[in-house]
Amino acid sequence: MVRVIGVGLIGAGWIGRVHAEQYQRVPQLCSLPATKVKLRAVSDVVPELAQRIAEDFGFERRYADWRELIADPEVTLVDICTPNILHREIALAAAAAGKHVFCEKPLSMSGAEGREMFEAAEAAGIRHMVNFNYRRAPAIAFAKRLLTEGALGDVYHIRGGFTQDFAADPNLPWTWRFSKATAGGGSISTMGCHAIDLARYLVGEISHLVADLTIVFPERRKKEGGVAKVDVDDSAALLLRFAGGVTGVLFTSWVAHGRKHHFEWEINASRGSLHFNSERLNELELYEASAPNDRQGFKTIYLGEPHPFGNVFGLKAGMGIGIRETFLLQVYEMLRAIVEDSPASPSFYDGWQVDRIVEAAQASSERRAWVSL
Amino acid sequence: MVRVIGVGLIGAGWIGRVHAEQYQRVPQLCSLPATKVKLRAVSDVVPELAQRIAEDFGFERRYADWRELIADPEVTLVDICTPNILHREIALAAAAAGKHVFCEKPLSMSGAEGREMFEAAEAAGIRHMVNFNYRRAPAIAFAKRLLTEGALGDVYHIRGGFTQDFAADPNLPWTWRFSKATAGGGSISTMGCHAIDLARYLVGEISHLVADLTIVFPERRKKEGGVAKVDVDDSAALLLRFAGGVTGVLFTSWVAHGRKHHFEWEINASRGSLHFNSERLNELELYEASAPNDRQGFKTIYLGEPHPFGNVFGLKAGMGIGIRETFLLQVYEMLRAIVEDSPASPSFYDGWQVDRIVEAAQASSERRAWVSL
Amino acid sequence: MVRVIGVGLIGAGWIGRVHAEQYQRVPQLCSLPATKVKLRAVSDVVPELAQRIAEDFGFERRYADWRELIADPEVTLVDICTPNILHREIALAAAAAGKHVFCEKPLSMSGAEGREMFEAAEAAGIRHMVNFNYRRAPAIAFAKRLLTEGALGDVYHIRGGFTQDFAADPNLPWTWRFSKATAGGGSISTMGCHAIDLARYLVGEISHLVADLTIVFPERRKKEGGVAKVDVDDSAALLLRFAGGVTGVLFTSWVAHGRKHHFEWEINASRGSLHFNSERLNELELYEASAPNDRQGFKTIYLGEPHPFGNVFGLKAGMGIGIRETFLLQVYEMLRAIVEDSPASPSFYDGWQVDRIVEAAQASSERRAWVSL
Amino acid sequence: MVRVIGVGLIGAGWIGRVHAEQYQRVPQLCSLPATKVKLRAVSDVVPELAQRIAEDFGFERRYADWRELIADPEVTLVDICTPNILHREIALAAAAAGKHVFCEKPLSMSGAEGREMFEAAEAAGIRHMVNFNYRRAPAIAFAKRLLTEGALGDVYHIRGGFTQDFAADPNLPWTWRFSKATAGGGSISTMGCHAIDLARYLVGEISHLVADLTIVFPERRKKEGGVAKVDVDDSAALLLRFAGGVTGVLFTSWVAHGRKHHFEWEINASRGSLHFNSERLNELELYEASAPNDRQGFKTIYLGEPHPFGNVFGLKAGMGIGIRETFLLQVYEMLRAIVEDSPASPSFYDGWQVDRIVEAAQASSERRAWVSL
Repeated sequence: MVRVIGVGLIGAGWIGRVHAEQYQRVPQLCSLPATKVKLRAVSDVVPELAQRIAEDFGFERRYADWRELIADPEVTLVDICTPNILHREIALAAAAAGKHVFCEKPLSMSGAEGREMFEAAEAAGIRHMVNFNYRRAPAIAFAKRLLTEGALGDVYHIRGGFTQDFAADPNLPWTWRFSKATAGGGSISTMGCHAIDLARYLVGEISHLVADLTIVFPERRKKEGGVAKVDVDDSAALLLRFAGGVTGVLFTSWVAHGRKHHFEWEINASRGSLHFNSERLNELELYEASAPNDRQGFKTIYLGEPHPFGNVFGLKAGMGIGIRETFLLQVYEMLRAIVEDSPASPSFYDGWQVDRIVEAAQASSERRAWVSL
Repeated sequence: MVRVIGVGLIGAGWIGRVHAEQYQRVPQLCSLPATKVKLRAVSDVVPELAQRIAEDFGFERRYADWRELIADPEVTLVDICTPNILHREIALAAAAAGKHVFCEKPLSMSGAEGREMFEAAEAAGIRHMVNFNYRRAPAIAFAKRLLTEGALGDVYHIRGGFTQDFAADPNLPWTWRFSKATAGGGSISTMGCHAIDLARYLVGEISHLVADLTIVFPERRKKEGGVAKVDVDDSAALLLRFAGGVTGVLFTSWVAHGRKHHFEWEINASRGSLHFNSERLNELELYEASAPNDRQGFKTIYLGEPHPFGNVFGLKAGMGIGIRETFLLQVYEMLRAIVEDSPASPSFYDGWQVDRIVEAAQASSERRAWVSL
Repeated sequence: MVRVIGVGLIGAGWIGRVHAEQYQRVPQLCSLPATKVKLRAVSDVVPELAQRIAEDFGFERRYADWRELIADPEVTLVDICTPNILHREIALAAAAAGKHVFCEKPLSMSGAEGREMFEAAEAAGIRHMVNFNYRRAPAIAFAKRLLTEGALGDVYHIRGGFTQDFAADPNLPWTWRFSKATAGGGSISTMGCHAIDLARYLVGEISHLVADLTIVFPERRKKEGGVAKVDVDDSAALLLRFAGGVTGVLFTSWVAHGRKHHFEWEINASRGSLHFNSERLNELELYEASAPNDRQGFKTIYLGEPHPFGNVFGLKAGMGIGIRETFLLQVYEMLRAIVEDSPASPSFYDGWQVDRIVEAAQASSERRAWVSL
Repeated sequence: MVRVIGVGLIGAGWIGRVHAEQYQRVPQLCSLPATKVKLRAVSDVVPELAQRIAEDFGFERRYADWRELIADPEVTLVDICTPNILHREIALAAAAAGKHVFCEKPLSMSGAEGREMFEAAEAAGIRHMVNFNYRRAPAIAFAKRLLTEGALGDVYHIRGGFTQDFAADPNLPWTWRFSKATAGGGSISTMGCHAIDLARYLVGEISHLVADLTIVFPERRKKEGGVAKVDVDDSAALLLRFAGGVTGVLFTSWVAHGRKHHFEWEINASRGSLHFNSERLNELELYEASAPNDRQGFKTIYLGEPHPFGNVFGLKAGMGIGIRETFLLQVYEMLRAIVEDSPASPSFYDGWQVDRIVEAAQASSERRAWVSL
């Protein structure tokens, strides 16, 4: 018997379209036994977007109100691609209706919201996932494997940063991203959530942190004229302490000229080191301390067939996937979790933890003090 | 009125599956006005492959014999993903039936075959394209734009190479790729065709060349036991002269340890230089001679929204596409050519020229002499 | 009339020998009008080292006691290459005797010591310099020029780190470097002093910081048997605030496998960014925000003739100097300051500031709190 | 008893000054038992240059005529830093007088000259060396060690190039470098000699080649007004065949914008590959085919203490030497050869072979044909 997963997508902007495409590609590229994925419904506040995505990807129906989408009995998986501020309400409604939920990052606006969403999802017994898509980059998955297998030994340090420059232009107009009320946070939230998630994924739980968040441009012009206040960080710097004494440094900025989509981290451990830069998505640098004295160096590994997900794409090392394909692998993980009835990773628990840490960073910066988690 | 393009795919292996996926994605991601693309039929000598691709991508019907596929009146575009040796026969039959043809690279087994295919396609008035997919990498398309606009001035040199190491293992078993009768050539054909095509695309026509082809492993073991002779090159080195006096150097090898899918080239011109490496598909290095004396250097440009095809993927610079998406853009080019009834690039003419040049390189190496084209 | 500068060197180990060589080279390579440099005397607690350096470089005499060296009337410049713990006493004695002083880094064991040394030097009216040699790397000097000229605009962030792996081996024996009493600090002092000095040099004064220092190996074996306690940091992580609101992040570790002598920093400013890595000493990466939208990228500039000190070495860009030549340029700066009777850079004031900041970092880490400077 | 080596330097320009400095530094940095090096005499057609170098480095006397310098009984080693056209005459005279000779590269103007010089040197029983200084870069010396020890297995390919852009400016005035009569060759000679020497050093003897030399700017303006003809190559492209079937590609150009001093080569062999770029003088990239399938990649090795000459400089990996220090190591090799009375490397034999190969390349290009050596 074939299981049917009925997808209901809420939010038909760029990111929603990327998700839609992956529901189509997963059954074609990945192994998903005895399962059909159907794009049942889409909902967007902008009817034209909903119509366009429905035509392009074959969604069977459109709803003006996302509540109707959730109520649709053929929708079994709700995919949330709305602005951050709506994540909580939609996810809670979906969970209450017993629908699985795949939610864009960051999970919510605060630690309290994230916890509520996680607890509701667990209580409802649904599968839930938040889209920290870098967990699925083959280089990250391979790093995780090396760390799990002990090839790197004990971790000493993790340092990372996610820097961009899209907001370095002082004339960039104000949007909802620049308000705490609508975005929850600035660069620490929008980009830092990826860095925090990976730090937890690769190294473990964070116990303490101190943070320094800054606003470089306290006002931005409004498209409609006048200016609006910016009350979220343009940059954030964090010192982290992990359980077990590992030290960490994180940095985010969206006013860092020249850094286009630069998510970089390094791990130093007792048996070697790892270095990654998302702008070179298909590379992982590995240093093995066991190499002979005169042959030591970071090795540039091109990810491909011998590595995680190598079988999905059938690509030789050096050919390379794109960022969209990390979304494909996330959608695969979500669908796999439903099919196998086992937890997805990263779950709402992970999303909640990241939200807590973002919140703690904001509090630490305000109080000018270390905080414990 | 909506035009329908009916795709008939011949060859359902890995590359055929990559093509199939792109026919689905192009109408979703690219602008293709008033057109529907339908996967009408597929043909493969291995029925299981045909069945699997049909199920996964929704081909409407399967044919045991590719001739039937070509005869199918709803098939208006024939996509050839078979081994090289079959390209000619299929393409000629498709042209004779008035079907547009998209053919995998290299176009054919020789200059004569390539010419025959080109002339037949032209005579039939069809749209024809050969899949030198690197023309569609945004970095290459941007390089072409810079060259066309004159930003680089007059070209002096082009140097390039396509190196891999998949055949560096002496125990790699013999396949059809190692026989001239079935493959037409070795590394010069399989990988060199990309390098030759780009050299022509970016710099212009080649007038003379001298080549040195070598066989490192003259025999390889057969899977079924025993050994088979290798009569195609494991590596090829070429000096090129272009119309106008530009000099070129090309190198290919599939026994170059450490080079996984390494297609690298550099152009030096009167106003600057360009450098590209396919393993860093989303980067182009640009040197502008006009920079002040103390601020001269190669600039690493991450391709994204401001560059060719930036609107297709909606990706910020630094996010990056994968190799599969160069196929998507090729399929887009083929479909665009049909819709607009204008030539596709690279056409069978380009495929023929590359085949001629490969053949000339083989002849030059055998005769130990320069040859003119 | 020719001025004679009489050098007295205290400490004839590896670093002393590097200094000795540069006194010889400076008059040959650099412009130092009407001046002769004479290696008058050397002193070391190990007589064999003193004898060897005297023979190799032509020091005129040797002293068993450094006090005698300072008393030598022909010694006009005292060069201190001893362990950190002796810097203060020697420098104070030299200043009292009216001798110019060039002191290895870090200047002293604490902020109080550094201040005492600076004030004594100023009171004595001597020329004084501490050897933060990276100020003289052409890439750094060029970065300073770009910042000073305003080519980068207003600085937003500086992030840096100095990481090495020499102490990552748990079997590395205990030395004086691992004791606060003899070294003053761990990686934050030995390597961090360079990073702190450059942050001040390039960006300005630090007003606040919070630090987290950790000890990875709390004990190390002693060469003579048994183990000794380690009470200095193996790694240090700092958040910095500069006057004017610039934010900074610094990291040091000497247990970071794979990082051999890796001093890396990045500055993001309103008109562009800079990136430097000491392992690629002759390169500076520059991003100019004014570049056209489709031609933006970090430019790799090879330092050479058009850049600071280009005339000293007469090297084309791409040829490159070595780390020893940054010492040559420091010795040049010291001699220049004497000849021109103008302040040297970095002076004891700079050395003191760095010592204060190291001390503040230690205090901040202990108190788990931000500290102001 | 102490041996005295009396140096006589002919040519006091930039390169002569670099040599002079190294005679001073070698006894200080390198182990040269029971030997004193004395700078006895210098000769230059420009008296001011001779006077300046004598003052700066302590040459005991100056000669207007280099013949007198050779006749000086205290001169036992003649160092030739003149324009290429004088190498032969001076070297022959020095050999006739029984003086050891260290000659700048390229050795001579032609294969015949090179042979004459080699045979004269051998007949005279002197030590002779030509300054292909890259043999002494630690990265190259380490590559040689790896190849000699068999760590790389059998070599398949070598590819290399030496590219610069100093002549890319069409307004660069004519100098003796642009005339065959005075320079012997263009980029193939000035820069190509390094590449050819290393190919021979690392891989072995070349048996056949085909070359294509081009002149991009057939005329250049003269400083004194008017224009002069250029009759040497601005660029050269070569295919090489080595004994044993190894294939090679070499390329040189001095009109390659953006390439400042870019000497790059790659070797592919049966057990791995090597890659080097002189602009990153202290790095060698090593690929070991024996690495596990999922941990394969080029390793960036920073040269330092564990590598050849590590003891000379006492530098940690990552600190790095400069190009001048490759000259120091060459001078060391020359002096070592005299002290130990054993051959120096590269000898006049090597210089002659390179000259022959340059000549063969010129002939091949003219005849448009392969030539054997």
